[in-house]
Amino acid sequence: MAILLYDLCAGDSQRRFSPHCWKARMALAHKGLTFETRATPFTKIKEIGGGFSPTVPVIDDGGRLVRDSFDIALYLEETYPDRPTLFAGDGGKALSRFVESWALTSVHPALLGLIIVDIHGALGAEDQAYFRRSREERLGKTLEEVQAGREARIEAYRQSWQPLCHLLALQPFLGGEGPLFADYIAFGPLQWARVVSPLGLLADDDPVAAWFDRCLDLHGGLGRSMPAAA
Amino acid sequence: MAILLYDLCAGDSQRRFSPHCWKARMALAHKGLTFETRATPFTKIKEIGGGFSPTVPVIDDGGRLVRDSFDIALYLEETYPDRPTLFAGDGGKALSRFVESWALTSVHPALLGLIIVDIHGALGAEDQAYFRRSREERLGKTLEEVQAGREARIEAYRQSWQPLCHLLALQPFLGGEGPLFADYIAFGPLQWARVVSPLGLLADDDPVAAWFDRCLDLHGGLGRSMPAAA
Repeated sequence: MAILLYDLCAGDSQRRFSPHCWKARMALAHKGLTFETRATPFTKIKEIGGGFSPTVPVIDDGGRLVRDSFDIALYLEETYPDRPTLFAGDGGKALSRFVESWALTSVHPALLGLIIVDIHGALGAEDQAYFRRSREERLGKTLEEVQAGREARIEAYRQSWQPLCHLLALQPFLGGEGPLFADYIAFGPLQWARVVSPLGLLADDDPVAAWFDRCLDLHGGLGRSMPAAA
Repeated sequence: MAILLYDLCAGDSQRRFSPHCWKARMALAHKGLTFETRATPFTKIKEIGGGFSPTVPVIDDGGRLVRDSFDIALYLEETYPDRPTLFAGDGGKALSRFVESWALTSVHPALLGLIIVDIHGALGAEDQAYFRRSREERLGKTLEEVQAGREARIEAYRQSWQPLCHLLALQPFLGGEGPLFADYIAFGPLQWARVVSPLGLLADDDPVAAWFDRCLDLHGGLGRSMPAAA
């Protein structure tokens, strides 16, 4: 039976942009597992498993529910050990947490401030109301105020990718010669931006852009199959 | 026969502050190997093995010379596989490179700008001349100009540790339950600052300070045995 991935969706239900859901989706593909996605608006997350999780991704593997992208990756690694590894050992598991911590502190907040109105624009009406209310409360500003003057912040955002840029002079993927879950942790936010925002964020000659391109090609072009924002 | 570690030294030859040499020293201790250090001023590095390396650390393991802290860790892992692991697998190796890239791009440059005059002050006369000339040429400013107004940059420096701070809410070491080479990569710059500069850089209640304290206790208190700058 195919694994079911509850995947955040835009108003049209086809567009999937959540960075965290993309991490889970890439992990499922990396393991070569058969899976289907279930389009899930923000305001329907509470219906999954009778309120199992406040956020997506959630997977349903034959009745077993698992939430949180990192926990999903750990679950897949443990449950399907004979499939391609997502961590390549215990050190890889521990240090993937560092990559996650780096992405969540250094990349996500800056990126959110560049695309938050674009995200809002992609949502259905009910989700828009929820998103505006919850994010404006959290950030203490209107979405438009958060995103205002974003062009002036693009260079600082590019700088936040410096650690990966430096690494890519040494090896083609975070995982070394090939991708590991750590690559998907960093892929998530770039795919988030690609799917919801027309804003060009990375310079064409940035090694991070070339690495992202390689990631879009992985697993039969899974990432690329999701259209970029026009 | 004990492994010999060529270790950058201050003017008094007892003080050892190089972040990169500390990474190698902690790696040797982690492996439980017997080693001695050879005090090496900047201006004597060229004499090691007839010009083997422009930088330290260099180790001499029974006549075999290895340079560069990361390459030394890889060498030790391969040569002494039955000793405690520095990487815990191939994923750990690949992602330790990311930790290194993060440290070199996000931590070292900011820290150098806070302590560069203190470093100069710790060196012997011949090294001082070399250090001033080479660093002023590289940075396009005098050492004093680089360090000027440093108090105003401490907060930004503290922010550069955010990824590790975030991680430490999840696990006690970068390596997970115990330290791996990745911990020593992050330990290096903090020990550098501790040994050469009296400047208080981390807040006392910063989880990074507590983790650094744990690292100072490792391997019989090896890091702590080097006195802090007064």
